[in-house]
Amino acid sequence: MKTKHLIDLESLSTEELMEIIELANMIMDKPCDYADSCRGKILATLFYEPSTRTQMSFKTAMLRLGGSLIGFDNPQNSSVSKGESLKDTITVVGGYADIIAIRHQLEGTARAASLYSAAPIINAGDGGHLHPTQTLTDVVTLYNEKGTLDNMCIGLCGDLKNGRTVHSLIKTMSHFKGNRFVLISTPELSVPQYIKDIMNSSGCRHVEVPSLAEALPMLDVLYMTRIQRERFKSPEEYEKQKGVFVLDSEKMKLARKDMKILHPLPRVDEIAEEVDYDDRAKYFIQTVYGMYARMALILKMLENADRKPMPRRIDTHAVRCCNPNCITSVESYLPKIFRPLGGDMLQCKYCEGRTLI
Amino acid sequence: MKTKHLIDLESLSTEELMEIIELANMIMDKPCDYADSCRGKILATLFYEPSTRTQMSFKTAMLRLGGSLIGFDNPQNSSVSKGESLKDTITVVGGYADIIAIRHQLEGTARAASLYSAAPIINAGDGGHLHPTQTLTDVVTLYNEKGTLDNMCIGLCGDLKNGRTVHSLIKTMSHFKGNRFVLISTPELSVPQYIKDIMNSSGCRHVEVPSLAEALPMLDVLYMTRIQRERFKSPEEYEKQKGVFVLDSEKMKLARKDMKILHPLPRVDEIAEEVDYDDRAKYFIQTVYGMYARMALILKMLENADRKPMPRRIDTHAVRCCNPNCITSVESYLPKIFRPLGGDMLQCKYCEGRTLI
Amino acid sequence: MKTKHLIDLESLSTEELMEIIELANMIMDKPCDYADSCRGKILATLFYEPSTRTQMSFKTAMLRLGGSLIGFDNPQNSSVSKGESLKDTITVVGGYADIIAIRHQLEGTARAASLYSAAPIINAGDGGHLHPTQTLTDVVTLYNEKGTLDNMCIGLCGDLKNGRTVHSLIKTMSHFKGNRFVLISTPELSVPQYIKDIMNSSGCRHVEVPSLAEALPMLDVLYMTRIQRERFKSPEEYEKQKGVFVLDSEKMKLARKDMKILHPLPRVDEIAEEVDYDDRAKYFIQTVYGMYARMALILKMLENADRKPMPRRIDTHAVRCCNPNCITSVESYLPKIFRPLGGDMLQCKYCEGRTLI
Repeated sequence: MKTKHLIDLESLSTEELMEIIELANMIMDKPCDYADSCRGKILATLFYEPSTRTQMSFKTAMLRLGGSLIGFDNPQNSSVSKGESLKDTITVVGGYADIIAIRHQLEGTARAASLYSAAPIINAGDGGHLHPTQTLTDVVTLYNEKGTLDNMCIGLCGDLKNGRTVHSLIKTMSHFKGNRFVLISTPELSVPQYIKDIMNSSGCRHVEVPSLAEALPMLDVLYMTRIQRERFKSPEEYEKQKGVFVLDSEKMKLARKDMKILHPLPRVDEIAEEVDYDDRAKYFIQTVYGMYARMALILKMLENADRKPMPRRIDTHAVRCCNPNCITSVESYLPKIFRPLGGDMLQCKYCEGRTLI
Repeated sequence: MKTKHLIDLESLSTEELMEIIELANMIMDKPCDYADSCRGKILATLFYEPSTRTQMSFKTAMLRLGGSLIGFDNPQNSSVSKGESLKDTITVVGGYADIIAIRHQLEGTARAASLYSAAPIINAGDGGHLHPTQTLTDVVTLYNEKGTLDNMCIGLCGDLKNGRTVHSLIKTMSHFKGNRFVLISTPELSVPQYIKDIMNSSGCRHVEVPSLAEALPMLDVLYMTRIQRERFKSPEEYEKQKGVFVLDSEKMKLARKDMKILHPLPRVDEIAEEVDYDDRAKYFIQTVYGMYARMALILKMLENADRKPMPRRIDTHAVRCCNPNCITSVESYLPKIFRPLGGDMLQCKYCEGRTLI
Repeated sequence: MKTKHLIDLESLSTEELMEIIELANMIMDKPCDYADSCRGKILATLFYEPSTRTQMSFKTAMLRLGGSLIGFDNPQNSSVSKGESLKDTITVVGGYADIIAIRHQLEGTARAASLYSAAPIINAGDGGHLHPTQTLTDVVTLYNEKGTLDNMCIGLCGDLKNGRTVHSLIKTMSHFKGNRFVLISTPELSVPQYIKDIMNSSGCRHVEVPSLAEALPMLDVLYMTRIQRERFKSPEEYEKQKGVFVLDSEKMKLARKDMKILHPLPRVDEIAEEVDYDDRAKYFIQTVYGMYARMALILKMLENADRKPMPRRIDTHAVRCCNPNCITSVESYLPKIFRPLGGDMLQCKYCEGRTLI
């Protein structure tokens, strides 16, 4: 890996991604060989927003490498409640830990943290923005359950408008050849245009389909996600539509024998409990692949970590990002940094939101 | 141990129980010999209901075996708050951890968890129902402090109606020969009939006594528990009665020189602080025995753990358990399973509550 | 170290303090040599009052010595909420852990805990009273950054009246030769008389100065602390005064090239963010020194720890301490113990508050 931090999976080349996947598989084959790989190393899990699932996966990964843990899972118990800046917290924890996994409700927090951390930063979810280790988990699952990452017909069902894991999976799978996407949602919750642009520019065919039943027969993979009740136009619309996007044993009869079901979890009721006993259900074993994926990632990142003692000062732009959920809206000392998009448009380097000069 | 999970101490044979006690004593003799027994293994402590004491005991036990820990101690910080089912949480954690200790406010939760867990489950307390590792602690303490588990006169004082540790200790000690019980409480808080039936059927003599002072001279062991203020008929009754069930130095003059005092802790004021300096007070060393008891239990359970990858589906009964504190009242997908008790009576396999068809 | 517990840094002789500093430096030089020094040992961190910074520092220290951890960081999750006494908690945890770090909002709590603990106790902060490992951190930082602990001109800025770390640093540095103090605060927040007495009796020169700008040119070291808004006489006074005690790049031009800035952290706005990039800013590296200081302390304390199985009873005085923030005001079973100060004055051995007979 050329980058020190893992903020966005897109910053990895396909080769780097394959290296992590292959390392995950090697660890899975012979976990004992890696049981002491991180002996003496410390992972800090800084969870400003609780997420038992993700935090446990990181912790288990580090422990199974022989490493140990510090961190918090509750902002109320942290110095944050005393008004400490993200910068100060990260600077101090970066002096204690060898590697940091950070989760925060604001977009761009992991990027902001990476400006000040002597230890490598892993983005464990920054608001609705990015969650790269979930996508890494998805990809390791696909690679193992399908034997390939190419030439698949991948169905994505649920809230495709707001689902960060959906967007990230499409982006990543677009880099592999011959993948097609079947997008299953209401018109209101369909994928944003910029995701369609990505599929188009990488030559991935895609089709929008209004119901699971219609899509199922074509799929090699079904990636299920929640549609939150409040995302529907009206309670009546919800009641009318909801069954269309719920997977149950009856609908599974329409699916291929070798189709695999994935889900980022936690699920609510979009997959009926009875489906758990179907051999094609892979959403639980997916969490085990996720643990191995994180073991591989931690190993790779520690391998090429060079600790820099103190950050250098970064020049700030005069313009402020206009996304109210961007970390810069709260942590005012952060340098304003943008990517020019042409014309008067700037893209915030933290949250990737667009701002007009 | 023949059973994979430890839900109820009653599921162990006396021989299996003695094996655990003897292993606890071997560890106590040479702790260094076991300092790496669980190296590379992970215990998950899932505490849906906080209990520092019990959780610390489990954690210390695992750490002193060289193992490591994941888990949570606060339901607010867990995915539970996102509406995830017990089944999903357990299935995922069972994929991360090698063994799970679970505590929950609802009865039958540990049994329910055992249906879905690839890793062995230890019941660390399920509501007012069972708390087998406390009883294991009590028995290891008795064995070490009295040198035997037979032929003892055991006093139990406090709320004998609602005290799960009292019921469990009576059940367990009834399997050993020659034990007698002195039951010290108000009439309203005396042991339930089914516990008396157990003592009778195993030929254990027992007597009910209205005050500590009267009971003390006969006892080899005094097992103290709290009587909660609100359990008394009225505040006046509480004020009148409370002193009768409080152990102090004055009352200790009535006790034998080799009597031992046990208490599951935390205590409030049922044992005066001055008694702590009496050599017969064993309630603090009892917690140390508890740590060794849990070390032995974890070792035994990991020894014969075979991991099953996915649970099989279980047929459900049409009848629902009528206990509102049963885990099935909340987790509706759980299969309804019962033991027929004769006539139209069914006993719920989760909470052991009785339901009429 | 002659004392089993570390309640107050003043209980260490200068030789003992130097031994810890030198051990910290040895560990810093060759951390690998100490990576297994505490293998098999357990540190309990009992944080009745949350403090992420201090708790993480202790945890990291223990992990980097190869030890492991139990504890809590939230009184709501502990048995304390069930009304358990400090004595009972400490007695039990002292049976589980090899060493305990305790933090509590009431003064004298660490001393009280030491009466009942089989394991050595480290005071990790008891209300506004003492915080010896912070001062140890400060001293290790000074020793490394200045190369000496003698003959320095030390500025202390902020709330010098209530700042326990300020008082403790003055006391400790007064034991070394030739140190002078420049006290920078408002008249209302100047150091208490008893601290001035200490400086006088050890022959340390000191001067009070009303502004940072005036003090800066003379200083070898500047120890910054917060002045809380509510400490000022009025909001108007705060607005008028606050800039006088804020360190920024402009003021740093007045300081010597080799002056070092320390701060116990967390800071709020008393040091402008721009100062972080000044080479003289040492408040972040100070936290790393703090980790090594705690590693050295833990090692020293475990070295000479002899576990006593049960505490002996201590006679209690008839008089009660009149400090409402003293631990004895809440934990009523604690023996009242005092140092006679002459006349009718007694000094409480827990909180060091004075009480008239």
